[in-house]
This record gives sequence, C-alpha cells and structure tokens, in this order.
Amino acid sequence: MNHLYIIGTGPGGLEHLSPTAHAALGACTDLAGHGLYLNLLGHLAEGKIHHKTKMGEELARAALALNLAASGKTTALISSGDAGIYGMATVVFELLARDLKSEWKNVEIEVIPGISAMQAAAARVGAPLANDFCVISLSDLLTPWEVINRRIDMASQGDFVIVFYNAVSNKRSWQLLEAQQILMRHRQPETPVIIAFNITRKGEQLEITTLGDLNPVPLNMLSLVIIGNSETRHIGKWVYTSRGYHTKLALVDSNHSQ
Amino acid sequence: MNHLYIIGTGPGGLEHLSPTAHAALGACTDLAGHGLYLNLLGHLAEGKIHHKTKMGEELARAALALNLAASGKTTALISSGDAGIYGMATVVFELLARDLKSEWKNVEIEVIPGISAMQAAAARVGAPLANDFCVISLSDLLTPWEVINRRIDMASQGDFVIVFYNAVSNKRSWQLLEAQQILMRHRQPETPVIIAFNITRKGEQLEITTLGDLNPVPLNMLSLVIIGNSETRHIGKWVYTSRGYHTKLALVDSNHSQ
Repeated sequence: MNHLYIIGTGPGGLEHLSPTAHAALGACTDLAGHGLYLNLLGHLAEGKIHHKTKMGEELARAALALNLAASGKTTALISSGDAGIYGMATVVFELLARDLKSEWKNVEIEVIPGISAMQAAAARVGAPLANDFCVISLSDLLTPWEVINRRIDMASQGDFVIVFYNAVSNKRSWQLLEAQQILMRHRQPETPVIIAFNITRKGEQLEITTLGDLNPVPLNMLSLVIIGNSETRHIGKWVYTSRGYHTKLALVDSNHSQ
Repeated sequence: MNHLYIIGTGPGGLEHLSPTAHAALGACTDLAGHGLYLNLLGHLAEGKIHHKTKMGEELARAALALNLAASGKTTALISSGDAGIYGMATVVFELLARDLKSEWKNVEIEVIPGISAMQAAAARVGAPLANDFCVISLSDLLTPWEVINRRIDMASQGDFVIVFYNAVSNKRSWQLLEAQQILMRHRQPETPVIIAFNITRKGEQLEITTLGDLNPVPLNMLSLVIIGNSETRHIGKWVYTSRGYHTKLALVDSNHSQ
C-alpha cells in the first residue's frame, strides 16, 4: 500500500508537533507543501525530497502529493495548524471526488491533526474559546462575501465567540472593518478582541484590544482575530470566556451567608 | 515563581500529546485532575502526587491546583482535549477574577493547548471541519437551554458545520433530538453526520450517518457529534466539507474544453 500522510504540523514551533506527526515525518521520503511550512519543519525536513508549491497552488499541490504516493513514495502533504481546519486535507478529498485516477485508488490516506493557530493564540492570552464559538474565514476568494457576511451576522446574533481566519492580508483590507460594523449591531464596543500573528513562530505578535477600537492591523499580516462574546472578560493579562461558573460561585456565596 | 501548568493532554492517546505538554508533565511534581484523565497519562503520571477530583468538582479542582502551586509545588492541572475548549483553563481564570487570594498572586500560569476531540474525530473521517464551523455544548447545566437553542438555530441558518460537545449522556437524552428538529428546518435530511466516541482511546467508536437518521446514541456515551453543512460530502469512507475548490476545478475543465 502507498501512503499519503496529510499532516497538520501545528502553529509553527515544533514544540507543538504531535508524536504522530513526528513519526509520519520520519517515515516519509517526500514532502509536498508550501515552502514556508517546509522550512518551519527544520531538521525534521532534512534528508527528504522537497516538493515546494506556492500559495494559491493548493490543487496542484494535492495532485502532486497523490501522484508521489501513487508512484510508491511514502509522502507527507504538509499543512500548518490543523490540516483539517482551512488546511490541505479537504483539497485532496475534493480532488479524489472529482477525478479518481485509477492509480490514486491504491493510495492509503491518513489525516493527522495538529494544534491550530487559534488554539495557540487562545492559550497565550488565557481561554477566550472556553464557551461556544464559531470559526469564519474572511477570505472571499472561494466563498462569496454574502455568505461570509451572513455567517458573521448569525454568529454575532447567537452570541458566539468568533475566530476570524485570513482576517487581513495584502489584498484583503476592508473585510475586517465590515465585519466590525456587523458585530457592533449586537455587541458592546468594550468586547475584548485578540489580534494574533505568527504565534509560536519568529516575530510572534499579540495584541489585546476591544471591538470598538479594532483597526485594521498593518497590511501584509496574515492575522488571526478572536472576538469575545458577552461572557468574555479581559482582566489583567488574561482574556477568558466564562463557562458560567460564576453562577455556581454566587450560589456558594449565598449558601455560605445563610 | 510558582508554576501552574494548565495542560490540554489531547483526545486521549499519548501519540497526540505535544512536546510542550510532555515537558511540563516532566517538570511538575503534582497533578490535579479528574481520575480518568490522570489514568490516560500512563507512565507520564508516574512518580507524581495525584490529586483526583470528580466530574462536577471543577471549581474545587481549580482552587486545589492554585493552592498547590502557591505552596511551592510545580503543578499541572490536567484537562483532556484542549484545556481552553470546554476545559479547565477558564475555570482557573473565573476563580482568580472572583477571589484573588494573596498567595495566588505569585502563581505563574501557563496554558498549554492540546488537540481537541473534534479535531481527532474529524481527522479520522476526513475533513468535515474544513470550512466555517461552530462549536456548541449541549450541556444545559451552566448555560440555559434557550441560549443553546438560539445558537443552534443561528448556526444552522448560517450554514455552519456544527460540532456538538456533551451531546448525550446519562442525564442528557432529549437535547440532541431537539437540536435535530431545529437543524431540519434549514438542512437536508441527507446531510452527513458523524458520531464519535472515545476517539484515540480504548473503545473508540465512529459512526457516519445522516441528519434525518440521527438517533440518540446509547445512553452513557459522552459523544461528540459533527453535523455537516450544505457543502459536506460523504464519499466512500471519507466525509469532507468543500472549501470551494470544485469551482476552481470546473473553471480548469471549461478552460481545457475551449
């Protein structure tokens, strides 16, 4: 059987790479991925044949990885964060569903999850994702803005904590501000907001601000933005979303005082 | 400085435990956590003092961990999955915000993320979380059902993939069926649904079904349920949610045929 591992390599730093991912990297001879993410693997990528593709070449990258595996090379398709969350895994399945080449039928696929950027960012500031949350990509390259707009509105009305992926980039400047306008209909301007960039990587940046003060971060920053809900608090250096234990605490207090 | 590590130990199997979590476990002398999760640590928990608490004793567990760290013990508060996603991290912050005891001020807290159960389950079946998704706990112990109900409705109207945590338990039998009724207003009965139990642990169970056929899983199963959206497909053994690359593929086809 020919193996294709689709690996989520975590937010960046190898200190978050799972042993399963580590073992799969050890087993493979060929790596397919964006050059940046192959470089982040450091010594784990040494001695392998590197097949680098660029941003926007996801379909070609997935086909390449399938072809490599079909040809008998134990192959790892590298995706940063979690390969299943805006990562490469689904691109492979979309390709297989569309055009199942006979040689691809012999490829055994394994998806290996990784710690996503939102989890690494959340852990750095406390626990903002501790209650019900939504994850939305602000990239309108493949999803129409009307769909994204509606999702922001629904997430906002449902009082979900919201994580925006692909919030700002070189070519994406107005989406985050439009999202802010939608959110302000249902949320207080004091709502805590976290802007995270390059978490666990060189040049890590974290900013805690509020919904009212949310400005577009400098262009060229592929940022992750977390918007709190009505239960999110920013106290000292921590941001966390209550699971409602304060109600229990209040009950304890009132029992004590009786 | 006294250290408290709040560790997400991943879905269960140690093959998903990050090196950071591994190192923190190595550094600590005391472990606080639910007995089940301490047991899952296997040899990594050996030689440590175990402070076991039961389900429902989250506040006492968090206070215990803070007290241990304050007394000079390097302490790990153990949470399965990701400590920041329905885990122990926020309980500690809620407690600190409520009642910052002077001795707790000297505790340096580090939250260490882990791979959550939904990520492990998603990887097993393919890539169902590959597009915008919502995570909702069906437990109404701390959140009123009206709030949960509204969130399900909003998530459904927004065409999000939806992950239900705490979907079914001994004392929680009707919530998942009510969720199904809400979802059926906006989603096709053929929508793929994944029911996952004990992923990466002994007794792992995975079932792929549809929204129309969703029945309550046997009681006593603390299950995770993933509901697809309009872009989720179940093909062969895989379930994935499209990111829209099929549009790109169609364009490639039409260019070829010109």
